[in-house]
Amino acid sequence: MLPADPTKYKRSSEEIYKQACDVITGGVSRNTVFRRPHPFYASHASGCYVTDIDGVEHIDFANNMASLIHGHAHPAIVSAVVEQLMRGTAYTMATESEVAFAQLLHDRVPSFERIRFVNSGTEAVMALIKAARAFTGRPMIAKAEGSYHGTYDFAEVSQAANPDNWGDIDEPNRIPLVNGTPQGVMDNVVIFPYNDTERTLALLDKYADQIACVIIDPVAHRIGLFEADQSYVDALYAWTRRNGALLAFDEVVTLRVNYGGTQENYQVKPDLTSIGKIIGGGFPVGGLAGRSDIMKVLDPREQRILFPHSGTFSANPITMTAGRLAMELFDREAVTTLNALTDIARYQILEAGREAGIPLSLTGAGSMFRIHFREAAPNRYREAYQPKEEVAILKEFLDFMHVQQHIMMINTGTCMLSTAITRTEVDRLTEAMLNGFRYIKPGLDALHAKEPKTA
Amino acid sequence: MLPADPTKYKRSSEEIYKQACDVITGGVSRNTVFRRPHPFYASHASGCYVTDIDGVEHIDFANNMASLIHGHAHPAIVSAVVEQLMRGTAYTMATESEVAFAQLLHDRVPSFERIRFVNSGTEAVMALIKAARAFTGRPMIAKAEGSYHGTYDFAEVSQAANPDNWGDIDEPNRIPLVNGTPQGVMDNVVIFPYNDTERTLALLDKYADQIACVIIDPVAHRIGLFEADQSYVDALYAWTRRNGALLAFDEVVTLRVNYGGTQENYQVKPDLTSIGKIIGGGFPVGGLAGRSDIMKVLDPREQRILFPHSGTFSANPITMTAGRLAMELFDREAVTTLNALTDIARYQILEAGREAGIPLSLTGAGSMFRIHFREAAPNRYREAYQPKEEVAILKEFLDFMHVQQHIMMINTGTCMLSTAITRTEVDRLTEAMLNGFRYIKPGLDALHAKEPKTA
Repeated sequence: MLPADPTKYKRSSEEIYKQACDVITGGVSRNTVFRRPHPFYASHASGCYVTDIDGVEHIDFANNMASLIHGHAHPAIVSAVVEQLMRGTAYTMATESEVAFAQLLHDRVPSFERIRFVNSGTEAVMALIKAARAFTGRPMIAKAEGSYHGTYDFAEVSQAANPDNWGDIDEPNRIPLVNGTPQGVMDNVVIFPYNDTERTLALLDKYADQIACVIIDPVAHRIGLFEADQSYVDALYAWTRRNGALLAFDEVVTLRVNYGGTQENYQVKPDLTSIGKIIGGGFPVGGLAGRSDIMKVLDPREQRILFPHSGTFSANPITMTAGRLAMELFDREAVTTLNALTDIARYQILEAGREAGIPLSLTGAGSMFRIHFREAAPNRYREAYQPKEEVAILKEFLDFMHVQQHIMMINTGTCMLSTAITRTEVDRLTEAMLNGFRYIKPGLDALHAKEPKTA
Repeated sequence: MLPADPTKYKRSSEEIYKQACDVITGGVSRNTVFRRPHPFYASHASGCYVTDIDGVEHIDFANNMASLIHGHAHPAIVSAVVEQLMRGTAYTMATESEVAFAQLLHDRVPSFERIRFVNSGTEAVMALIKAARAFTGRPMIAKAEGSYHGTYDFAEVSQAANPDNWGDIDEPNRIPLVNGTPQGVMDNVVIFPYNDTERTLALLDKYADQIACVIIDPVAHRIGLFEADQSYVDALYAWTRRNGALLAFDEVVTLRVNYGGTQENYQVKPDLTSIGKIIGGGFPVGGLAGRSDIMKVLDPREQRILFPHSGTFSANPITMTAGRLAMELFDREAVTTLNALTDIARYQILEAGREAGIPLSLTGAGSMFRIHFREAAPNRYREAYQPKEEVAILKEFLDFMHVQQHIMMINTGTCMLSTAITRTEVDRLTEAMLNGFRYIKPGLDALHAKEPKTA
């Protein structure tokens, strides 16, 4: 919409990064955007197109790590935000915008009886875990090996578990992510193998009276972006009912899957849900939602507040306004259309894989999919885990997609579509993927010749 | 600047709150804005004036909990943000804006050799603690009794310690803030009495080889908004040098005190500093800054990343643009002018206290001050601690100031000035305070007649 500012082209990404390294650790504030020899710097974006500082335009299938459901600079969101901007961005008062947005989410997802807004997915999961502890009076949580739930250290345990340290699958090791993490963190986190009902229940049973909540990402991105099996979720739900624990869904990424979130796919409902990403309309956001009797631990009207909680920028009217509008525009029809378009992409990409003669499977749900260079789609973390050689090939593929094909994807090999994407971009993605598959085929062939075939 | 939208006046704060309670826990996403019988809802704001939904205009001395250094909707910030808005709010790429802003902060505060941006003060302190652990390989932190450092549970221990639970001052109890906090959290937090050098050093010595960092807020707001004594900071610095630990300053609130933060007041420099609030220019923000050799734990270029860290909205170009502009406008001259104006306010308010015949002292530094209804300014947490009866009087005072005098203050009895404030508003504040002091004088008199005089 805005013409490119020519002064922005004075320096290349390489030059900017050189300066960045002198003032920002590693030159980036987010490791996700780091790459060698330097990250790319964005100049401007509109809809599903992002132009970098070097003047190259890309089709965006990453959407700021899945957070922009309508792509960039949606005119209606821009216009509503400008209006709010002129009225102020934050006050030491509440605003009507948080009530309107909470009402929308409450009406949209049956389990969202009460909501609280925070500033990031990390804060959302941290608040969720603290709420579960406050309600149950129990200290432990249980989470899946390999699952990502933000940067709260309890939620980070075993996020990056690997064959060298993950240990016996019957009781996976509790691996800290950050050096120096107190043992008291690991002592309070049970790690279970996602989608493995028998082992998960056996592990939960060991700590049955100490577990505040069992948290799962129902389409676990870092594990492999596959869905939690129906029977698995049913079993977790039943276990939590029997043992006085809560079932929590982390839907920060997955709320986009259906109109009412991924939880719409299951008969049982989570007690608490963390949300984020798309609900911010492009601005920093997180949220905690769930059963009103549990959320009561946060209520300042109570005699004793079990979980006192505040936040300078929580529920600020810029995020609330942008978020409400984004979710209004992402109505039932928009969800259905976007998911159908994603199905076309899935179909075409699998075809391209066959045409290129490479092993390929796709996982995901709704408007998200992740590619795996193997015949059968994985369904467990240890099965989906990519050895170094496979990661190297994926990296090569993603670099080729970005640099040669001008397609932005998430660094796990994932596409998170926005409503700004049309059939034209999906066809272009397919063509680019075909080129990419052919590009890495020799490497894949060499790898599979060397190694026993995986799953 | 924008004419008030008449449709916004359709509902009263009371009516909005009624709806809010059905969808948001306690009806608020931030306990700071909660009050009985209902919070106030903001309609719009400009400079130092905030108009609520009921049409009442207030002078703002709270500035969204000290985060708006130029007040509301500063035209230059609005205009720069609008320009960025049209180019997009966030990408899966870096932007030049984070480099420009990091450079500014780096050049401004000598100890900020390297910087990382996050989304809130809570995230900043969490990142700081994790960085200190990652660098030292040690699990414990030491913090002051009563100090507030956000909602990361390690940072929350003993934040709300009170006479019923705080225990022996020679080794203060470690009091969890949230019900169900794991014992493993308390086990890794040493609590010391702020500004009490002898006791603090004795406590630190007990855990000398396990402490990753000693963190203090150099003008500790919740403790009483008084400064850390020079000799105290010197002693903490020397202790950390002797024992292989880091000295960390939480300057989320206090960066405003001087051009280079409160740390400009001390000869010794912190190894790490958490920042936030005013550096966001009105948008969600946090930051971690410090010695480059320590910050290296975050560097994605390292063979082994000791502290892997990312964040969907970290360093987003809206916050970076607004923040850089806010800090550019808060130049040496602006800091000096604002601090001088605040000194006038301090002087006049103390005069008003004398005129009203109440016991009154002020603490604070730079553009911040907090009122205490006692003759001598407190300098320790347990000394500054307000019993229930005193809190009730303060609440009465603040309600009177807000509702009758249309002056917004922070709920601890604190004013955090913005550059939008002029002598006119300071005079109005003084007049309102005088009215307020007279209003609560009978209550204060009754309290002091009943109780032995404090300090």
